[in-house]
Amino acid sequence: MPSAARKSQERDRASMEPPPADDYAKERYGVLPLIQSQEKSDRVLVRINDLTVEKTDEVVWVRGRIHTSRAKGKQCFLVLRQQQFNVQALVAVGDHASKQMVKFAANINKESIVDVEGVVRKVHQKIGGCTQQDVELHVQRIYVISLAEPRLPLQLDDAVRAEVEGEEEGRATVNQDTRLDNRVIDLRTCTSQAVFHLQSGICQLFRETLIHKGFVEIQTPKIISAPSEGGANVFTISYFKSSAYLAQSPQLYKQMCICADFEKVFCIGPVFRAEDSNTHRHLTEFVGLDIEMAFNYHYHEVVDEIADTLVQIFKGLQERFQTEILTVNKQFPCEPFKFLEPTLRLEYREALAMLREAGVEMGDEDDLRYIHIVGM
Amino acid sequence: MPSAARKSQERDRASMEPPPADDYAKERYGVLPLIQSQEKSDRVLVRINDLTVEKTDEVVWVRGRIHTSRAKGKQCFLVLRQQQFNVQALVAVGDHASKQMVKFAANINKESIVDVEGVVRKVHQKIGGCTQQDVELHVQRIYVISLAEPRLPLQLDDAVRAEVEGEEEGRATVNQDTRLDNRVIDLRTCTSQAVFHLQSGICQLFRETLIHKGFVEIQTPKIISAPSEGGANVFTISYFKSSAYLAQSPQLYKQMCICADFEKVFCIGPVFRAEDSNTHRHLTEFVGLDIEMAFNYHYHEVVDEIADTLVQIFKGLQERFQTEILTVNKQFPCEPFKFLEPTLRLEYREALAMLREAGVEMGDEDDLRYIHIVGM
Repeated sequence: MPSAARKSQERDRASMEPPPADDYAKERYGVLPLIQSQEKSDRVLVRINDLTVEKTDEVVWVRGRIHTSRAKGKQCFLVLRQQQFNVQALVAVGDHASKQMVKFAANINKESIVDVEGVVRKVHQKIGGCTQQDVELHVQRIYVISLAEPRLPLQLDDAVRAEVEGEEEGRATVNQDTRLDNRVIDLRTCTSQAVFHLQSGICQLFRETLIHKGFVEIQTPKIISAPSEGGANVFTISYFKSSAYLAQSPQLYKQMCICADFEKVFCIGPVFRAEDSNTHRHLTEFVGLDIEMAFNYHYHEVVDEIADTLVQIFKGLQERFQTEILTVNKQFPCEPFKFLEPTLRLEYREALAMLREAGVEMGDEDDLRYIHIVGM
Repeated sequence: MPSAARKSQERDRASMEPPPADDYAKERYGVLPLIQSQEKSDRVLVRINDLTVEKTDEVVWVRGRIHTSRAKGKQCFLVLRQQQFNVQALVAVGDHASKQMVKFAANINKESIVDVEGVVRKVHQKIGGCTQQDVELHVQRIYVISLAEPRLPLQLDDAVRAEVEGEEEGRATVNQDTRLDNRVIDLRTCTSQAVFHLQSGICQLFRETLIHKGFVEIQTPKIISAPSEGGANVFTISYFKSSAYLAQSPQLYKQMCICADFEKVFCIGPVFRAEDSNTHRHLTEFVGLDIEMAFNYHYHEVVDEIADTLVQIFKGLQERFQTEILTVNKQFPCEPFKFLEPTLRLEYREALAMLREAGVEMGDEDDLRYIHIVGM
């Protein structure tokens, strides 16, 4: 840790007053020193996602971030968050907590990481704002593990607000620049967590499906000695006393594998395009999901495999990533995605006829990719 | 296909004489025109690996390469190859094959792709040179799909010969330059096929194990705006009117994910090092298998996960890739690899003591990585 950051954190830790000596709960809360692998603990931390009614009346330890905090008389309601999941925790004056302890809990900055010991209690009314709706934690101990800055550049609740809602009600949203300048905080939102899980899931479904079909995954070179596809749109690297180029696609290497009898290969990896265009179809770097296969008699054998692979990905997303899809939908509302199994297959002439029937004027050999611009 | 290559192939096709009109088997062999997705075939091609005694007396179609060919009187023995697998095929003068047909089969250049129709016959003596040792194919039809050049820059059998054996018996091996200059042919050897399957397998085992442990796979940027680790050994890219750099590791992005509560992430992808050193420890580009995780109390939690991940990879290789390991071992003989479960864990001081006991002289803080040079 750079010393400036360390000093800042030490100052923050010091800013939280230590428990007064006459507090009967003084051992039950406080700011712990920085964890430095000094000792091995056999404490079992329970995942927030696992806090369900089956655990009612159990005493558990949980590590999470303070998502929200609301003090109310002799009580403080915290929401503890762990990735996409959160649970309500109650610190209330009583045998385990003193007035000072409730005040301490209420003063912990949002986004701080805390260790909490608490009893799992079933609630009579579902807790709407949390993913763990049927239980809450009655806190017996609370320790700050890592204290967040008191003022954050963005609020997580603002960052997940659906834009329509924000505009309608005049509530705060977070603009793109603020998000990108504070990417680490923006990535903590349930939406970002879900997006990354979906991205990982899509690659995994692509990979599982293809390996099951007998494909071999390959890794192809990115630094190449000559532009591989014409020469336009290629990035030049200074390569010692010479020049080299960034691969615009794994095409050549995939085809070499086919000539080398691999029969079916795929790769997932970065490709590079030196296209100085700012459209949603141009990126200088993106992750390509690439297939190459030999066919025996007709290229439709390849079309069949690609179509089925897409169906398997869609099905896998529906079956295994419903939680993530719903999370993203909250911020970005949309209709559930639909697909056909097997995939719809149109002859080129059929597609042209349908487009013309829909009022699109186009020549027999125009590029179909641009059709969506006119509303298809 | 470039026109020179096309002409060369047309010339090759023409060089094989068409069946004479008075040949009773004339419909049963020949050179087929280039497949151009003209028609869809409902012919089922059987995989060579599936040619087992269960298929005895069945008539099957197989597409494979001519691996070797040996004419002997009225018979021609072919070995047909598909990736790591091969089977013996017999063309013998009789009801299905004429003298001309046997001659035609004997004259097909090695590495040509053929479609063969044949009856699966159980053999009385195991066929030592083939992976399919219990059956052979009695050929009823044989057609050339793609004709190879008559003289190849390297022979596959030479390329898989164990070097020791070659030296001892004075038999041909293939040097590195010839292999790299003809990579597509070298990749067809059973050893290369096995190496690529193992490589794909290692990545898949790494990934499966980590996903099972709750890790999320991420893709990190390769083009970055500033050197990420000091600045030495970084490749500079000309990025439109400015400069950019190739990422030396996914480190920064993995750590961002940890700060963003991902808890456990991994990535598999290329990293770039501008190191102008020709040693087996320096490569300008390699595929990194990277892990990053948060720990709760002690860094040994991370050490445990890494150790177990390695064990799972070793076990997976032993259980699922035995064929590939044996194939590689034929060319590169070595003892079976060993590992402990759980992995051996040494304290640094214990390791130093063991080294000194073994006669290695080193200071308390010397770099352990160089120890293998002195024979450990």
